Amino acid sequence: MFLHNAWYVAAARDEIGEKLLARTVLNEPIVLGRDRHGTLFALEDRCCHRGAPLSCGWFGERGLVCGYHGLEFDHNGICIHVPGNNGRTIDEARVRAYPVAQRGDFVWIWMGDPARANVAEIITYPPDDLKTWSLRFGSLYAKASYVLLLENLMDLSHLSYVHRNNIGSSAEDSAHAKTEVQRTPTGVRFLRLMMNAKPAPSTVQRYGFTDKVDRWSDFEFVAPSLVIQYSGAVNAGDYEKGVRTGGHAVRILHAITPETDTTCHYFFAMAQSHSASRPAERESAPARIEVAAFEEDVAMIEQQQSRLQGYDQRKLVNIPSDVVRVHMARFLQEKLRDEHSSQYN
Amino acid sequence: MFLHNAWYVAAARDEIGEKLLARTVLNEPIVLGRDRHGTLFALEDRCCHRGAPLSCGWFGERGLVCGYHGLEFDHNGICIHVPGNNGRTIDEARVRAYPVAQRGDFVWIWMGDPARANVAEIITYPPDDLKTWSLRFGSLYAKASYVLLLENLMDLSHLSYVHRNNIGSSAEDSAHAKTEVQRTPTGVRFLRLMMNAKPAPSTVQRYGFTDKVDRWSDFEFVAPSLVIQYSGAVNAGDYEKGVRTGGHAVRILHAITPETDTTCHYFFAMAQSHSASRPAERESAPARIEVAAFEEDVAMIEQQQSRLQGYDQRKLVNIPSDVVRVHMARFLQEKLRDEHSSQYN
Amino acid sequence: MFLHNAWYVAAARDEIGEKLLARTVLNEPIVLGRDRHGTLFALEDRCCHRGAPLSCGWFGERGLVCGYHGLEFDHNGICIHVPGNNGRTIDEARVRAYPVAQRGDFVWIWMGDPARANVAEIITYPPDDLKTWSLRFGSLYAKASYVLLLENLMDLSHLSYVHRNNIGSSAEDSAHAKTEVQRTPTGVRFLRLMMNAKPAPSTVQRYGFTDKVDRWSDFEFVAPSLVIQYSGAVNAGDYEKGVRTGGHAVRILHAITPETDTTCHYFFAMAQSHSASRPAERESAPARIEVAAFEEDVAMIEQQQSRLQGYDQRKLVNIPSDVVRVHMARFLQEKLRDEHSSQYN
Repeated sequence: MFLHNAWYVAAARDEIGEKLLARTVLNEPIVLGRDRHGTLFALEDRCCHRGAPLSCGWFGERGLVCGYHGLEFDHNGICIHVPGNNGRTIDEARVRAYPVAQRGDFVWIWMGDPARANVAEIITYPPDDLKTWSLRFGSLYAKASYVLLLENLMDLSHLSYVHRNNIGSSAEDSAHAKTEVQRTPTGVRFLRLMMNAKPAPSTVQRYGFTDKVDRWSDFEFVAPSLVIQYSGAVNAGDYEKGVRTGGHAVRILHAITPETDTTCHYFFAMAQSHSASRPAERESAPARIEVAAFEEDVAMIEQQQSRLQGYDQRKLVNIPSDVVRVHMARFLQEKLRDEHSSQYN
Repeated sequence: MFLHNAWYVAAARDEIGEKLLARTVLNEPIVLGRDRHGTLFALEDRCCHRGAPLSCGWFGERGLVCGYHGLEFDHNGICIHVPGNNGRTIDEARVRAYPVAQRGDFVWIWMGDPARANVAEIITYPPDDLKTWSLRFGSLYAKASYVLLLENLMDLSHLSYVHRNNIGSSAEDSAHAKTEVQRTPTGVRFLRLMMNAKPAPSTVQRYGFTDKVDRWSDFEFVAPSLVIQYSGAVNAGDYEKGVRTGGHAVRILHAITPETDTTCHYFFAMAQSHSASRPAERESAPARIEVAAFEEDVAMIEQQQSRLQGYDQRKLVNIPSDVVRVHMARFLQEKLRDEHSSQYN
Repeated sequence: MFLHNAWYVAAARDEIGEKLLARTVLNEPIVLGRDRHGTLFALEDRCCHRGAPLSCGWFGERGLVCGYHGLEFDHNGICIHVPGNNGRTIDEARVRAYPVAQRGDFVWIWMGDPARANVAEIITYPPDDLKTWSLRFGSLYAKASYVLLLENLMDLSHLSYVHRNNIGSSAEDSAHAKTEVQRTPTGVRFLRLMMNAKPAPSTVQRYGFTDKVDRWSDFEFVAPSLVIQYSGAVNAGDYEKGVRTGGHAVRILHAITPETDTTCHYFFAMAQSHSASRPAERESAPARIEVAAFEEDVAMIEQQQSRLQGYDQRKLVNIPSDVVRVHMARFLQEKLRDEHSSQYN
């Protein structure tokens, strides 16, 4: 069901401060925190003594203290203090420790074999060339499988329906979009182009476009849980000339972390190009519009989840816009099969 | 568990307007609505593309548009527009359509084989001769199997207990009631008579009866989900002379629609004879009393449901007042067996 | 899972008045009440007729009347009146009756074979010599197995962590506590001593202790659901001289009644020695502090329950302070095995 040998976003950076954070990832209860030196740690949120959540404890002199009977654990999950045991430790007393790392605004966690964790494989976001863009991040919670949110991002024809009042182009223009899809070593990438299209309502509102635009969407799925988005709009005719600036452009990292089989955390970081002509709105308006659209997506997939529960999904029918989704699903299946077989060989 | 080849009340007429209505009937999610011409439709509330509820969509130019990726369905559940497919449809793209019809204050739905749906079989209510009566309808929601509500209506000895403060006669009078039960082609009918009985509290309050009354209850169960009630009270001695007017009389259609195995919608329409002497109360008081009694029934069966969950009901003991209920249960079992065997022969 | 041949506290005395009380004990729905003479009764809260809860009824002339169709039951659960049956009863019409008795502030119920119920076996609390102490009782509800609450009381090392801000001694002093455990005919008893220890925060606050104290905890587990506590603190050095007064002392009866497999009621009665020097606080402060500590326990075991759900508890690791808990668990297992085998031999 879940790919374990992967980095997932566990939390936004600022969620982890002095207070311990209890978070479930891939059905596993985890406690995240920082020690007195600010060093991050992530441990199984269940004491090996009587099962109490370590997130009900606190960071003591040397490690994380269980708030029930006082066992103390270091960053590796090894119990370094057993109260009443005359200073001796107990070999079997340990909890699972998860590799964890902060990158930009997010804290990442490795859910698989720790020996295979390589922090160099964590996506770098934002790229350096975005320094002059404004940057936002945030998160939403969805009562739906993370797969439904990935699928949402892999079929942009939904913009004309779910987001028809903000970021969606007309259904007519959407139906004539051209999509190119290609497999990458880590997932699937597609480029969707709408040339000479009416601007979306929010594009009109934000940037004052009134004439036709060229609209591009460059999305890369990185298995199992990331989507890197680069999209925007320029004056009609400019796209083919290589123009990408002067209009509206956005780069977004979507990081979708399964909580349970049917719930997920949706983290996002976005960089928007500055609109020189409307500096006052630069800070708040753009992110507000995107987040409103993300909330529409979450509302839709939660409804979808409720309808698919206990339903035989093989009865569903594909249409042309499913092309990328089908590639993604196949890639994810392959990775799951690989991981599963590597455990037994 | 459920009889499918039957008309059920799906909604009150006014529940279905411009806004689409999502309603679950017999465990099946259904979207109900009217098109631009006011024509009713009822479709499976799950798009055949990705499973999104069609009730999150809207009625477009020609049909119901899925709010996720824009597939459009006609009244028969056939997908008449696939976005991005160059105007072509896809044969397998369809959702289930349910025969549906409006009769009086209710919208009815046929849950079985559409080929067997015959709108002429829908109960006509109210009968024409009720034109001079006041008419009310309403609905309640019960967290209990619809069978428990049917059973409630088939054993009126409960009036003296559940409704002892309003429509119930004394336990003494109730114990001496005479009940005749007969099978009909579509269910079971019973006549329960209490002669020379003390009037119920609400009869005293509404109609000023203080002397003894003759009280009749003529109930017809029409499988699987309807009960047609004609009941009332006249001065003691008048019933045997054939008098039915001048006292209190009510005609009620109870329509009980299973939502899930353990929840149901309780729709009712009632016609009350006018009380010439107390015209001011004619409009509101009578219905208020009956609805209060229905709410007492719902509260009781919800408690009953909670106690029966996971309990072996064969341990329950019958008493004389169960006679009609047992007839009803047997009839319902036969119909279920018939329907089940007809599916496999 | 549950020991049935035992007295459990079903309710606080004052919970059972004119109004019937519905309470689930060991997964069984029970109605508790008093008849017109004040005599207690406890019956299965499910009518043998149609399964309605008898707690929705009322006490009539002779017995408990079902509020649905009027069957009437005596204290033994025998149906003594069947409406509409011409005064005859029906042999199979009966519900289960539970032996029940009031002792002090609690109403006790016997959940097993009624023939083995002996009210003389109910714990007497408070002992007579507590007459001059102030007495409190109360209850809490916990979304956790009753076993987790018993375990909590059997390992007092948790005081230094869960209750570090009120009744807990320092972790250092706790680690040096001496515990003696012994089996009794009815369970397990332990004495835990902390000599020459810093007083707990609440001991300082309540009694003005500033110097070192001797602290004792004498706990007796009486299977399956009671813990009798006698604990306190005196000036350091006084304990070995046999001094138990002049400091702080408390006697508590903990009665933990399983509601379901994963929920329980936590009843407690406590007697505190009077603090002559601070009479104003004698009535309220002591109980307030203990109840606050009980609430901390409940919060902890609810968290623990959530983490143990679906977890293989054999992976947990014992530490020295588990010694009493292990004895208790073993005793409880033996009693369960005995009861189970006696049912089949």
